[in-house]
Amino acid sequence: MVTVRVGVLGCGNVGGPLVELIAAQSDDIEARTGLRLDVTRVAVRSLDKPRPASIDPRLFTTDAASVVDDPDVDIVVEVIGGMEPARELILSAVKSGKPVITGNKELLAAAGAELFQAAEAAGVDLLFEAAVAGGIPIVRPLRESLVGERITRVMGIVNGTTNYILTRMTEAGASYADALAEAQALGYAEADPTADVEGYDAGAKAAIIASIAFGAAVVASDVHHEGITGITEIDIAFARRMGFVIKLLAVAEQVPSGEIGVRVHPAMVPVDHPLAAVRESFNAVFVEGASVGDLMFYGRGAGGGPTASAILGDLIDAALNRRSGSHSSVGQLGVAKVRPIDDLESAYYLNVQVLDRPGVLAQVAGVFGDHRVSIRSMEQEGLGDEARLIFITHRAREAHVQATLRDLDALDAVDRIGSVIRVVGDDE
Amino acid sequence: MVTVRVGVLGCGNVGGPLVELIAAQSDDIEARTGLRLDVTRVAVRSLDKPRPASIDPRLFTTDAASVVDDPDVDIVVEVIGGMEPARELILSAVKSGKPVITGNKELLAAAGAELFQAAEAAGVDLLFEAAVAGGIPIVRPLRESLVGERITRVMGIVNGTTNYILTRMTEAGASYADALAEAQALGYAEADPTADVEGYDAGAKAAIIASIAFGAAVVASDVHHEGITGITEIDIAFARRMGFVIKLLAVAEQVPSGEIGVRVHPAMVPVDHPLAAVRESFNAVFVEGASVGDLMFYGRGAGGGPTASAILGDLIDAALNRRSGSHSSVGQLGVAKVRPIDDLESAYYLNVQVLDRPGVLAQVAGVFGDHRVSIRSMEQEGLGDEARLIFITHRAREAHVQATLRDLDALDAVDRIGSVIRVVGDDE
Repeated sequence: MVTVRVGVLGCGNVGGPLVELIAAQSDDIEARTGLRLDVTRVAVRSLDKPRPASIDPRLFTTDAASVVDDPDVDIVVEVIGGMEPARELILSAVKSGKPVITGNKELLAAAGAELFQAAEAAGVDLLFEAAVAGGIPIVRPLRESLVGERITRVMGIVNGTTNYILTRMTEAGASYADALAEAQALGYAEADPTADVEGYDAGAKAAIIASIAFGAAVVASDVHHEGITGITEIDIAFARRMGFVIKLLAVAEQVPSGEIGVRVHPAMVPVDHPLAAVRESFNAVFVEGASVGDLMFYGRGAGGGPTASAILGDLIDAALNRRSGSHSSVGQLGVAKVRPIDDLESAYYLNVQVLDRPGVLAQVAGVFGDHRVSIRSMEQEGLGDEARLIFITHRAREAHVQATLRDLDALDAVDRIGSVIRVVGDDE
Repeated sequence: MVTVRVGVLGCGNVGGPLVELIAAQSDDIEARTGLRLDVTRVAVRSLDKPRPASIDPRLFTTDAASVVDDPDVDIVVEVIGGMEPARELILSAVKSGKPVITGNKELLAAAGAELFQAAEAAGVDLLFEAAVAGGIPIVRPLRESLVGERITRVMGIVNGTTNYILTRMTEAGASYADALAEAQALGYAEADPTADVEGYDAGAKAAIIASIAFGAAVVASDVHHEGITGITEIDIAFARRMGFVIKLLAVAEQVPSGEIGVRVHPAMVPVDHPLAAVRESFNAVFVEGASVGDLMFYGRGAGGGPTASAILGDLIDAALNRRSGSHSSVGQLGVAKVRPIDDLESAYYLNVQVLDRPGVLAQVAGVFGDHRVSIRSMEQEGLGDEARLIFITHRAREAHVQATLRDLDALDAVDRIGSVIRVVGDDE
């Protein structure tokens, strides 16, 4: 039996459940692995906040650096989040030869390459299963099970808040505002929901997914992102009628040019696609491989219990590696050649409000033709003096679609351009 | 760079694509891991059969034991299937210190404990990702990501043939016979489909899942199994009307008594359950954990490419472990205390054909009451002189339901007992 002493930085929503989970599972873990996990230090911001009663109060300190430096700490878990001091603490830990487990997506999406390089130089693990999709094992399958696979595309529903909102809009006919208010009341959305609903959170996760799937240092600022604030009940209803559901997707793909496409945006997903069945605040990551075909990993992308479970899996892995004197590596991340969003090719759903008078459709169709954007289907709905035109295009270049929209917007007969939603499917 | 020399036993549906995949991916694998995989020997049953042109014919031999013993083979891949000589060859390989990768579910479900023990004694890897659900990473997530998690239940759609048949019955209204014929025409079902449609294949996988999820040596003969040959269009239609789809599930669960429940049978799955969206020949494994909540792993459970991909992931893992001088272990498998099927508690769907005359329903309901099986809902459908009664029960003990069915069958007014299908859901 080998005792492994764990220092935990942060004891909030994830750190608290983690320390409790380690205590609850430690006999089982010892029986299965011969490792005894012992939490010896816990860094907190304030000693005055109430903490789980099961945690010995003598473990707490407000000096996070002292936890990292403590000779009684073998492995460091970082669950304080944010850029600093998390970055400094992780670098300091790995440089002193201590493996680190983190769930810090913001930090990894900004400075992952630096941190991985430091861990590799020190020959220690830097594990981060919890950073992409909470409790869902996706980082380890991508890094290990699929290390021999040529991955062509990954599409994830990696933000539970927006998936909850879209599910309520789809299933209960709620408006965006009502669904957001409901998500806030349930604690699924923050008072300021920007990071979720504008796609920043999903963007950070997309950067990490792209980095590990394609071995290149993709950062959050490489990721084109659009949120769900513009999605209306009309879009939801048309989607349903045409056999789609609308999901906020994080997409990372390898394109024939050798570039990596990486983006977050709402998408029309066919109802019989496995991602369409991912409801409420659940997450899922859909992986397309050249040999393995389609895979999907589904579960809870957030929450204390699921996230703590993912961190515990990493912790045991790092402890086993430490015992055997080995460590895992993400390898050398290459420079990411990120495809400009203008070069994306996709089918599109477009919602255009026009004056309902003769000749308008011909005028509108002419604009599509000018930019070589080919229309797959069109539906028209009367709105008094106006009409709503819903187009699904064939596969087209983003730049051409945007040019089409600019020209449409300039037409007198066009009142308003509504949602522009990329379509996932056979045509893509 | 380290070269790892691989001996492959079998070059059929999986071995052929594997040797080709290794060749196609070897530069990428070398770039990512520093390992060069080199297939040095391939054992086949006949030298006369045509093989993929890309494989150097000089690699082939009909002497499988010579591949295992060859000093130019560092790691052995067993993809010949069946009990012997696979078992002997694997034992011989691990005893001589060579890691083994296998996808042989039949062998592992019968003799897994012996093989794991031999590998552990020799300090080498025995990896088997491909044995449970083809290309879906499920063994590694269960063994590694979830090693700290208390798993309560695993439910899998682990047989693509039966899932294809049930999907066609559900979506195209096909009869069982027509759907089976279609599956055979497409190569999804064998000429003799018994192993698939009677649940033997799923039973072997259930035994392996139970063994790794609960650390006990469950074997195929421990698994209660029922197939799908008795499922009718009537059952499918009633399921749909009541908000379910019928799936063949392999279930492994830890019950409060400390026993392990492990079984294969058709089940009513609520349409909004993630397993309900698993269509055609796809597989999925749904895992319920105390801390992580619900997880699902979805993908291709069979086929040369997906299975070869899973084996390649294991092969790289074993090669990395070999380089670092470590190996993974399933731990000591305890004795399995398997709960008798009679002690199962579940809700049930029952289809009973009765004579349509006064008093019959009271008589039938009385039998349920005698055995304390409580009815949650009942639907009646006229059939001329007869009526079909469809019952959904509350949670009841299997033994009580079976006794109810025996007594019902003895009633003059009961013409026929149709399907008995366990219901998955909140009540369970």
